[in-house]
Amino acid sequence: MELLKQRIREDGKVLSASVLKVDAIMNHQIDPILMKEIGNEFSERFKDAGITKIVTLESSGIAPSLMAGLQLDVPVVFARKRKSLTLVDDLYRADVYSFTKKESSEIFISKSFLHKEDVVLVIDDFIANGQAALGLLSMIRQAGSTLAGFGIVIEKGFQDGGDVIREEGIKVESLAIIDSLEDGKVKFRED
Amino acid sequence: MELLKQRIREDGKVLSASVLKVDAIMNHQIDPILMKEIGNEFSERFKDAGITKIVTLESSGIAPSLMAGLQLDVPVVFARKRKSLTLVDDLYRADVYSFTKKESSEIFISKSFLHKEDVVLVIDDFIANGQAALGLLSMIRQAGSTLAGFGIVIEKGFQDGGDVIREEGIKVESLAIIDSLEDGKVKFRED
Repeated sequence: MELLKQRIREDGKVLSASVLKVDAIMNHQIDPILMKEIGNEFSERFKDAGITKIVTLESSGIAPSLMAGLQLDVPVVFARKRKSLTLVDDLYRADVYSFTKKESSEIFISKSFLHKEDVVLVIDDFIANGQAALGLLSMIRQAGSTLAGFGIVIEKGFQDGGDVIREEGIKVESLAIIDSLEDGKVKFRED
Repeated sequence: MELLKQRIREDGKVLSASVLKVDAIMNHQIDPILMKEIGNEFSERFKDAGITKIVTLESSGIAPSLMAGLQLDVPVVFARKRKSLTLVDDLYRADVYSFTKKESSEIFISKSFLHKEDVVLVIDDFIANGQAALGLLSMIRQAGSTLAGFGIVIEKGFQDGGDVIREEGIKVESLAIIDSLEDGKVKFRED
């Protein structure tokens, strides 16, 4: 997606050979127009899949998911990282290991909002080592839902998360794949 | 906002005399069409205020803020509850006390995304005792930004947060004000 790559070039900050910061457009400040274009692109790529629900993870997955949900006219469910006062239903749970924080944390989805009749599109802001994606996948399997695929805004192609999911036979659509962040430069994979 | 009240009546769950759960439409599952209507309503109520930025708090404030930001054509900044690997800039900070959790937690906004030239609309999903709102207000004052007002999806009118903010001379637009959750029933304030 050329517009996205252009914005990553202009507004992204390469912090190290593995860390790209896009806080100016998605992860802290959000550009609503860009998110709408991203939502439309996901919608286009999955429009024939019979999607009934989008699943994402708080917080940065919410914006692109909401715009895709608006376009596809389906609800968005965001997995929560903390149990809340009002999240008291029966829950699907998964552990997500963070390599950066070197710790596991639990994520949750209420059983009220994910069913075996659902055809699910998972959307997330980044895929790197794929731990969050595997956690979401686990909960979708617990629910017995059909998985249509993953829509990822930015894939770190130099880490194996995207391919780990593809090797499960799952469709992964990444709008920008980054092959390298070496020397402070973002090198995109050619389409 | 009649559509919102109708959806709260249909999909909200009263857990106690002080807790209303709207996980089916906003706080866990999100209805994108409803969020778009909510965003349009906030936009309408603040369209002449010269808004340059919307500020909210992760995670449940993001969806209504994004839709208002789309309509007003301004960026959305969501205050973060945890320091992230990539949030390394100078930060505005505020403490938010949670009466339900009986603990304080810090919230952050990068100084890169809030400036004294900004005219800010704060949007949040709920206002109850107003602690989160006061935390956001503190950061806007630290930045020296102009505050246009608060847009709140659901105000718990039987708690004093909304009035605490109004007593500061700040415009607060709540799309649904609840006067009571007694006896398991949602009683709305008349417009």
